[in-house]
Amino acid sequence: MAIRIVSIGKTNDDFLARSIETYLKRIKKYAIVSWVELPDVKKKLFNTPEELKRLEADLLLKDVRPTSFLIGLDEKGKQFTSREFANKMDHWAVSNSDLVFVIGGAFGFDQKVYNRMNTMISLSKMTLSHQMVRLLLAEQVYRGYSILNGEPYHND
Amino acid sequence: MAIRIVSIGKTNDDFLARSIETYLKRIKKYAIVSWVELPDVKKKLFNTPEELKRLEADLLLKDVRPTSFLIGLDEKGKQFTSREFANKMDHWAVSNSDLVFVIGGAFGFDQKVYNRMNTMISLSKMTLSHQMVRLLLAEQVYRGYSILNGEPYHND
Repeated sequence: MAIRIVSIGKTNDDFLARSIETYLKRIKKYAIVSWVELPDVKKKLFNTPEELKRLEADLLLKDVRPTSFLIGLDEKGKQFTSREFANKMDHWAVSNSDLVFVIGGAFGFDQKVYNRMNTMISLSKMTLSHQMVRLLLAEQVYRGYSILNGEPYHND
Repeated sequence: MAIRIVSIGKTNDDFLARSIETYLKRIKKYAIVSWVELPDVKKKLFNTPEELKRLEADLLLKDVRPTSFLIGLDEKGKQFTSREFANKMDHWAVSNSDLVFVIGGAFGFDQKVYNRMNTMISLSKMTLSHQMVRLLLAEQVYRGYSILNGEPYHND
C-alpha cells in the first residue's frame, strides 16, 4: 500500500519534525509512505484568506490521482478509535491505488478540496496545531498497521 | 496558578521530551508549571497488573493535597474543545490550590485514583501513547492560557 501525507508549510519545530520522521520510518515496515510538505504560498500572491485557500487547494490536489482515496483531516470529520481507524485504512486500501491524507493550512480547506475528499476524519475535538496533527496522524497510521498485523505496540 | 502534570515512566523519545519542554517553558509565562515523571515501579515489586496499578496509585497520589483539583487523563473522560478546556481550567483554578493532571501507566488507573479524581478528561477517541498524551496536554494547557489571555496562538 502507498500512503501519502500532504500538508502545507514546513514543520518548524525541529523536535516535532524528528518525532514525525521516527514514526514514518516505522511505517515503512508495512507500507510505502511519503510525507509531502508543500511550500507556503507567497504572501504577494493573495489578498484574502479565500484566495489563499484557493491557491492551496491547487497545490494540495496537484498530485492526487483519480484512483487515490483522499482523506481530509478536519475538525468536522468523524472520530474513530484507533482500532476502527486501522480497519478503515484496511478497507480503504482495497479498491484504491493509494491513500492520501491532506492537512489544510491555517484557514482550513477551500470547497474544491472538500469536494474531492472521499472521507473526512478528526483526531480530536480540540484544536491542534498543524504540526501536532502531522505527528498524531503519523503515530496513528503506525499504530493502525501494528494493530492490523497483530503486533504488540497497541494494547486496548 | 500552579499546575502539575504527573505521569509514570520516563519519556524515552528524546525529541518528544524536548517538544514537551518547549511547551512547558511557554506555559511558565502564565503559571507555575511542573512536570513530574515518576520512576517506573520495579518489576520485582509486583506480579499482576492490579498490584502494579495499586503501587502506581500510591506514587501518583503521594503529593496530591486535599485542596488540589485532580484531573485524570482517561479514555473514558469527557472531551472538550480547546476553548471549553480553557474555560474549565479557569473555573477549576478559582477555589483550589493547584491543578494536578495525572496520566496513568500502561494498564490505566487503580480505583483509588479514580476515587480521588475531581474530573476526568479525554484528549482523543484514539488510543495515544503516554508520551503523546504528555505532549498534547502540554500543548493544550499552553493553548488554553493563550485563549484566556486573548493572545494570537489560537484561532478557531
